[in-house]
Amino acid sequence: MDFTATKALFDLPEGVVYLDGNSLGPLPKSAAERVARTIHDEWGAMLITAWNTAGWMAQPRRLGDRIGRLIGAEPGSLVLGDTLSIKIYQALASALELRPGRRKVLSDKGNFPTDLYMAEGLITSLGQGHTLVTPAPEDVANHIDADTAVLMLTEVDYRTGRRHDMAALTRAAHDAGALVIWDLAHSAGALEVDVAGGGADFAAGCTYKYLNGGPGAPAFIYVAPRHAARVRPALSGWLGHDAPFAFEPGYRPGAGIERMRVGTPPVLQMAALEAALDIWDGVDMAALRARALALSDRFIAGVEAVAPALTLATPRDHARRGSQVSFRHPEGYAIMQALIARGVIGDFRAPDILRFGIAPLYIGEDEIDRAVAAIGAVMAGRLWDDPAFRTRAAVT
Amino acid sequence: MDFTATKALFDLPEGVVYLDGNSLGPLPKSAAERVARTIHDEWGAMLITAWNTAGWMAQPRRLGDRIGRLIGAEPGSLVLGDTLSIKIYQALASALELRPGRRKVLSDKGNFPTDLYMAEGLITSLGQGHTLVTPAPEDVANHIDADTAVLMLTEVDYRTGRRHDMAALTRAAHDAGALVIWDLAHSAGALEVDVAGGGADFAAGCTYKYLNGGPGAPAFIYVAPRHAARVRPALSGWLGHDAPFAFEPGYRPGAGIERMRVGTPPVLQMAALEAALDIWDGVDMAALRARALALSDRFIAGVEAVAPALTLATPRDHARRGSQVSFRHPEGYAIMQALIARGVIGDFRAPDILRFGIAPLYIGEDEIDRAVAAIGAVMAGRLWDDPAFRTRAAVT
Repeated sequence: MDFTATKALFDLPEGVVYLDGNSLGPLPKSAAERVARTIHDEWGAMLITAWNTAGWMAQPRRLGDRIGRLIGAEPGSLVLGDTLSIKIYQALASALELRPGRRKVLSDKGNFPTDLYMAEGLITSLGQGHTLVTPAPEDVANHIDADTAVLMLTEVDYRTGRRHDMAALTRAAHDAGALVIWDLAHSAGALEVDVAGGGADFAAGCTYKYLNGGPGAPAFIYVAPRHAARVRPALSGWLGHDAPFAFEPGYRPGAGIERMRVGTPPVLQMAALEAALDIWDGVDMAALRARALALSDRFIAGVEAVAPALTLATPRDHARRGSQVSFRHPEGYAIMQALIARGVIGDFRAPDILRFGIAPLYIGEDEIDRAVAAIGAVMAGRLWDDPAFRTRAAVT
Repeated sequence: MDFTATKALFDLPEGVVYLDGNSLGPLPKSAAERVARTIHDEWGAMLITAWNTAGWMAQPRRLGDRIGRLIGAEPGSLVLGDTLSIKIYQALASALELRPGRRKVLSDKGNFPTDLYMAEGLITSLGQGHTLVTPAPEDVANHIDADTAVLMLTEVDYRTGRRHDMAALTRAAHDAGALVIWDLAHSAGALEVDVAGGGADFAAGCTYKYLNGGPGAPAFIYVAPRHAARVRPALSGWLGHDAPFAFEPGYRPGAGIERMRVGTPPVLQMAALEAALDIWDGVDMAALRARALALSDRFIAGVEAVAPALTLATPRDHARRGSQVSFRHPEGYAIMQALIARGVIGDFRAPDILRFGIAPLYIGEDEIDRAVAAIGAVMAGRLWDDPAFRTRAAVT
């Protein structure tokens, strides 16, 4: 695959090396026009009739299938909507009902906080004595037992880039009779995922990171077809009803994954996401992953050569990492500010992590080398000592 | 106020009379440019830094306050996000916890189905023996009793346009020790609402109907300041955390209404909504309401004169109706299709309701008279007998 060609499909500021696509992907050039068309030709010209005529109502399933290809999901098993927090809540609420009598929700302490917060909120609401258990990531397998209802993990750690062994952990959980929910926030569009082959029961992810769907793009949820027709949606919204426009007084869940829809889909966000997926449709995930690893290795080697004071936080083993490279330094925050001022955009996560996302669709050797040079210059000149880099509010 | 001037701010298709703004408001001319600016100058140029630099993170509160003015909410008591279904769920989950021991959730059978579905789902999840009671709308007050935890109503009925007496019902519920949740989907931007003065405990609404925020625009939730600091958010997402970017392992609710935020806000939808609110900032709600009633009366009189076969479903009493006028006819579906084919867009709700939304921002006497003439022509010519109008799938 020609990754030079894909870079030309993005609108990136002149002179900037963007290594934060693991937080917010950059703008696909076609997104602006696609959204403008949705606004003028659909909302403006078709008004209410666009829900059917322009296909808005079907969009969460249609785009869902396009994302499904990237994560190895069966066609018709994925739907877009809401935010990742909400989708995690839906998955966990459904999973717990499929394992009555079991009381342990197992995650890890490195999981992205919102997953843990949502679990905490759900457990309190249920009041059935569930416990959220969060051992160290490397220790998760040892905590799977006969009381484990659900294993809920994020495949790739948002701070370190450490990657769980999805297939092995899923197998271990299933062997113990538990269900598994995978958060693919840092996996979808970042590496090869095989939710169907790996046996995941539920998965969810966001589309504004590696998938480049834009700020606030909707989340997705996957439910394994073996569960989809029998899960009860706790968030039973009208668009998950079997006949939303019959306006029946009682809820009847829609067919399969349809029942995980809740309310009105964000049409403008979906238009931007659709433009982003036009790029993804042509991407071979194995080729992308190989290139991401090669670029990541080049970045690690380069940084370690020019900035020995930075400690690699990401596993060196290819199988054990995602598509981001993280380093630790006590002055990480100020260092990142100095880098951003030089046009190298990564981000910082407390207390000491500098994160750099490696997205081959728009990052190549040249960008890697420029980032390495900037890191070398910032570290050599101790630019982080400059008060200008120490006082700004943390970026997201 | 000059409502001719506001009409010029909307991009309406030539020749169309749009009476479906109670379902999806039309396109404000400035929305396209505002969204394009957000895409190019913020997402494209600022990338991740736009969350702070462009103010994306603060937008759900800032726009919330602008909507708050329209519904009589205290500053700082309203926040945007998610969909109305989710916001209703949040409100009900919080309200039920504030009334432990009480088991009745009282609504009415005319409530918009998703409110009832979400309540059903929550009640099942809680498993505490709550019951959802849905008497006829006019009979609600008689069902408020000492076991009523929450009275949850939509102020204006989505089919008939019948309006509840918000102040009286809120008072009756409070007298019985119950809390009240008002769904303002057909109220916000449609009529004068006074959530603070009326004593509402919670309120929620959508922004894509009368407010013209665009397809899939986010919902809003209001929590009375007396409750906001003590409610537990059942959907405890990271952006409702007191320090979202500290990434703490445990959830601590944010200050006041902030805790009702859940996940990443839909930035592109908010940009469109912001353009719509620029129009609303100049609107006097009392003047708008007076004009809407005058136009509605003109419409009712006109239709009754030219189409006696249509039966008015909306109360004639001004105080008892919202800003939509509905008629019944057994052939309602085909009649509406014939009207749409003639450029008069309303919508149909089974089994026999024709709905017409009266929005003075872009509807004036001329539009009302053209709609009346079209209705007269369709009814006189029995155009609904044309098979072309009988076979299409129902629009939303």
